[in-house]
Amino acid sequence: MEPTFVLAPDSFKESMTAKEVCMAMEKGLRQAYPMACYIHVPMADGGEGTMQSLVDATGGRVIHREVTGPLGQPVQASIGLLGDRPDTAVIEMSSASGIQLVRPQLRDPQVTTTYGTGELILACLDCGISHIIIGLGGSATNDGGAGMAQALGVKLLDQEGHELPHGGGALDRLRRIDTSELDPRLENLTIEIASDVKNPLCGPQGASHVFGKQKGGAPAILQKLDANLAYYAALIKRDTNHDVATIPGSGAAGGLGAGLLAFTDASIAPGIDLVIKYTHLEKYAAEADYVFTGEGSIDDQTQFGKTPFGVAKVAAKHGKPVIAVAGHVGEKIEELYDQGFTAIFSTVSGSMELAQALKRGPEAVARSSESIGRLIKKLRA
Amino acid sequence: MEPTFVLAPDSFKESMTAKEVCMAMEKGLRQAYPMACYIHVPMADGGEGTMQSLVDATGGRVIHREVTGPLGQPVQASIGLLGDRPDTAVIEMSSASGIQLVRPQLRDPQVTTTYGTGELILACLDCGISHIIIGLGGSATNDGGAGMAQALGVKLLDQEGHELPHGGGALDRLRRIDTSELDPRLENLTIEIASDVKNPLCGPQGASHVFGKQKGGAPAILQKLDANLAYYAALIKRDTNHDVATIPGSGAAGGLGAGLLAFTDASIAPGIDLVIKYTHLEKYAAEADYVFTGEGSIDDQTQFGKTPFGVAKVAAKHGKPVIAVAGHVGEKIEELYDQGFTAIFSTVSGSMELAQALKRGPEAVARSSESIGRLIKKLRA
Repeated sequence: MEPTFVLAPDSFKESMTAKEVCMAMEKGLRQAYPMACYIHVPMADGGEGTMQSLVDATGGRVIHREVTGPLGQPVQASIGLLGDRPDTAVIEMSSASGIQLVRPQLRDPQVTTTYGTGELILACLDCGISHIIIGLGGSATNDGGAGMAQALGVKLLDQEGHELPHGGGALDRLRRIDTSELDPRLENLTIEIASDVKNPLCGPQGASHVFGKQKGGAPAILQKLDANLAYYAALIKRDTNHDVATIPGSGAAGGLGAGLLAFTDASIAPGIDLVIKYTHLEKYAAEADYVFTGEGSIDDQTQFGKTPFGVAKVAAKHGKPVIAVAGHVGEKIEELYDQGFTAIFSTVSGSMELAQALKRGPEAVARSSESIGRLIKKLRA
Repeated sequence: MEPTFVLAPDSFKESMTAKEVCMAMEKGLRQAYPMACYIHVPMADGGEGTMQSLVDATGGRVIHREVTGPLGQPVQASIGLLGDRPDTAVIEMSSASGIQLVRPQLRDPQVTTTYGTGELILACLDCGISHIIIGLGGSATNDGGAGMAQALGVKLLDQEGHELPHGGGALDRLRRIDTSELDPRLENLTIEIASDVKNPLCGPQGASHVFGKQKGGAPAILQKLDANLAYYAALIKRDTNHDVATIPGSGAAGGLGAGLLAFTDASIAPGIDLVIKYTHLEKYAAEADYVFTGEGSIDDQTQFGKTPFGVAKVAAKHGKPVIAVAGHVGEKIEELYDQGFTAIFSTVSGSMELAQALKRGPEAVARSSESIGRLIKKLRA
């Protein structure tokens, strides 16, 4: 009886997508077990690569839509349509409103907008989607999801009854929120927000003070943006009766979390949990003889919601051996062994520069996997 | 029933002695198997580290003697006394006559001598030794073992009946070899030469042409040295009736192989074979549940007499799993899997500079061994 290997790695950043890691693992393992069953479950943790992984894991497809970028410029954003759920899409806010879409010298959290993310949600509705999984990592914005809300039909009006312009810097001019023209299709849409960020919308631990600097905000600006978000939350409460400012995660993606919670039927969950759910990892792990996982780096941060940790916990629940590989194995990983990891191997074959290690990723993963496979086979013989 | 791990690595050059590698392996494996039996068999392949490994493997000790260095200067050389055979010593010719004892700008194969190696053999006799294992790697010399022979009492006489001076450059002045004053204790001494070099004494594949350049010899010099060695071999044949010039290995260590074969009761064997024999690796491997080996680098050269290859063959003969670790795992190692290796893992935990990798050696070996141990334990549970 040939064994079943479930291959559930994250991407190796700057080296391989999760799917490519799966293929490299299988290539190596096949040297030891040519006839085994290999189940590819490309994973992610809700951050970059989540859309691609869920599409790959379910045999889905990616479509593209032109939306409004963080600075108003047109950008091509992506929607992942799950292969096993025709009603469900997965998007990443960064695809429409990400920091990588703004050149460093132009980064300004006062003016960047989540409008494009709202357009992306509308594009999902156009496709007949009734459920969206949205990853909130990598935003360029600090607008509390105001732009997103406007795209969905929410009117954010100033003293003269005019729509506010883009950006969190304008929210102090907000006088009234009118949701009467919200897209009616939203009534049939549910959203799951993948976010490991537990920050509230405002205050010292809020979106502006914790994440605003990396988006280009100077201290005085961040002070103003934080006050604007607090004011915005107060008007949301007054005009929509939603109290979102203190919900953990409302401060994610410059407050997009708050905007989604206020204007759509949304809930927040850790990214890895959503990925595990939509990849059906648990079902596969239950059938597996061996579960392989991995990520570019496995270190003392791995236990905080990273993919290999989530995979290890699921697999360990079913008593399965969990073998992890990583391009870099950091210090202080001992406690991972108590959390379901059976073994953790580095794939780097010797002293080399990072660029070389990244380039050799697929070969390195294949070779490590081959040795592990051969060891398993010998021990099980 | 707790398993028995036999730990039989070579040294990791510039990072750890073989014994230190054993200790690092045990440290890691004990995280998985605190109560297992760990048998340390520090290995070598006949080259650098062979003396230390055989001493460590047998619980022996090292003594030091001042002898004549390659350029006549006094040097402290080492003798390893095996812990389980009071009659047997292990020496390395490089300890007395090695290239590392001569500064690069002073390297000159015309004048360097193996006299100190002869003195080291005499020192062994003084200790009551009747069997010597000698490693021939790393020589600074090209004297055909003439200096060694002189130290043992052989008279190498010129036209005037005077002793030749040091160095292969003087051998053309040899007229007569007188062995009548050879140390009589040599009659009760046997020598095993550890050498993987199959080169004959002279000719295009001889000591001078193949190894002379790295000892500082210019092409014209090497031509002369080669002729000198051929002439020396002819006189050895005439005066002692030993025909040593074409014996494979006679060209090792600048022809020291030939000198030993001519003037002592010596035989040549691959270094790894002698180390396996004197460490009793086969007996331990037969008792082992798992055999660990390793070296600084495992690559396409490993199959040519390197330690991990020898260990793998012995262990595979007994059907034991052989797990190898290395600081660098090179390309084209696939065929090692057909030669007894079960698995080969890199110990380097990620992209880093060589100096860092060397420094982190013990920790890296321990951590890799821990993961391997945990994997074994899980699979055997």
